[in-house]
Amino acid sequence: MQRETKIIRWQFGKRSAPESDALACEEPLEIRVDNQPVTVTMRTPGHDNELAAGFLLSEGLITRPEHIAKIEPYPRNKDKNVLNVFLSTEIEIDFKRLTRHVFMSSSCGLCGKATIEAVHQHFPKITSRISVTAKVLQDLPSKIRERQSTFDKTGGLHAAAIFDTSGKLIVSREDIGRHNAVDKVLGHAFLNGLYPLNKHILLVSGRASFEIMQKALAARTPIIAAVSAPSSLAVEFAIESRQTLIGFLRDHRMNIYSHPNRVRTD
Amino acid sequence: MQRETKIIRWQFGKRSAPESDALACEEPLEIRVDNQPVTVTMRTPGHDNELAAGFLLSEGLITRPEHIAKIEPYPRNKDKNVLNVFLSTEIEIDFKRLTRHVFMSSSCGLCGKATIEAVHQHFPKITSRISVTAKVLQDLPSKIRERQSTFDKTGGLHAAAIFDTSGKLIVSREDIGRHNAVDKVLGHAFLNGLYPLNKHILLVSGRASFEIMQKALAARTPIIAAVSAPSSLAVEFAIESRQTLIGFLRDHRMNIYSHPNRVRTD
Repeated sequence: MQRETKIIRWQFGKRSAPESDALACEEPLEIRVDNQPVTVTMRTPGHDNELAAGFLLSEGLITRPEHIAKIEPYPRNKDKNVLNVFLSTEIEIDFKRLTRHVFMSSSCGLCGKATIEAVHQHFPKITSRISVTAKVLQDLPSKIRERQSTFDKTGGLHAAAIFDTSGKLIVSREDIGRHNAVDKVLGHAFLNGLYPLNKHILLVSGRASFEIMQKALAARTPIIAAVSAPSSLAVEFAIESRQTLIGFLRDHRMNIYSHPNRVRTD
Repeated sequence: MQRETKIIRWQFGKRSAPESDALACEEPLEIRVDNQPVTVTMRTPGHDNELAAGFLLSEGLITRPEHIAKIEPYPRNKDKNVLNVFLSTEIEIDFKRLTRHVFMSSSCGLCGKATIEAVHQHFPKITSRISVTAKVLQDLPSKIRERQSTFDKTGGLHAAAIFDTSGKLIVSREDIGRHNAVDKVLGHAFLNGLYPLNKHILLVSGRASFEIMQKALAARTPIIAAVSAPSSLAVEFAIESRQTLIGFLRDHRMNIYSHPNRVRTD
């Protein structure tokens, strides 16, 4: 999703007259659970139901698709920037979990290790024994770029995608926030009977951080590939969670940071 | 700041033995105000005092350097990931402001326009009449790259920097979070007698979002330049706030999105 604006282009010492250009769209989205405001995120409008479902899944509030009774726009917001998620009566809401930082502030001392342990108390480590060939991995970034419609025009969007181990694209989404793009693809899987993603690969167009790894674990994803660099905590997290983490997946090369047994070279 | 890890490098069909590689460091930081936890952010350790000061400034909690009495590590956290900011007795704490999303959830209807208006109720629009030559702007990215020590090795860090209108670098900082890198340079200025930054340029290595523009406005910065694309809301914000926003500042070109009168072509 994009918007038009007027810009002045300056190139090699020359200044253009005002001309049109496309921008990646950024708007706030408020997610409510049973009418109670939970979070506001800056996102690119579109696939908001998926974003809300993926967010609640990765925050550990819901664990099964049946936990969502319905998702609908808040009627009094005409801009469609407020979304209400109604949960099934069988689930008891842990409102302490309803903040973005629940896994970051552990009671046993604030550090990377404690943060990882806090996540593992909620989401078990990965046991999946799937594997993928290096050849299949190499071809994933070009498949996501073919779909990145807005990116080509604005240069302003992150992309995330889910693939199976044969390299088949299941879903891809774009957003100005990398965590939103990931929430959208995970939410899509969650809402469309594809959860858990324990035979799948999550690809992100940029870097891999702690937050991306935690979301992938919530969806049970064993293989995470990033086109750019991972952080130190993403790698520590992947090692402890038994996830295979791949970085710099581009130009016929990649780095494997953890559990390389899931990458075959045949 | 970086950490070493063991990786397997896969290149042109060949798999290396495990070898060493550098990672951008990511660790949680909890910021407390007068002992009360306010936020947890994932950041690259280093210059944490600046990060805390910049965060409190851009959240609108403090407006003058004298408002900070002292900043010190929380004694019971040996990992130095908890920081306590003690405010002067003259300032009354508005604890409603102590959340990251205060400017996003406006009472008058959630949308981009309302969000911008909520910011302007707290931070007035820019009136600075400074200008900078296109030549000076063109040379800024190379100056920040010279300083980006960790970036070259890990590819995992964002950078932010403040320059004066002659192109002199005042301060640059790196972080895995773009908003943290910006908080650090603004916090540095705030703690070192350089605030308000009303004769300065803020440069960010990546994209310009709403959040970056809001932080720049809090520090009173009239010119913001990004190496990559801005979002639609960043441009709307810049137009309304009377800030000059420049994007795609690289390879002897740039796009000027708002208030081009501050860019001279002589």
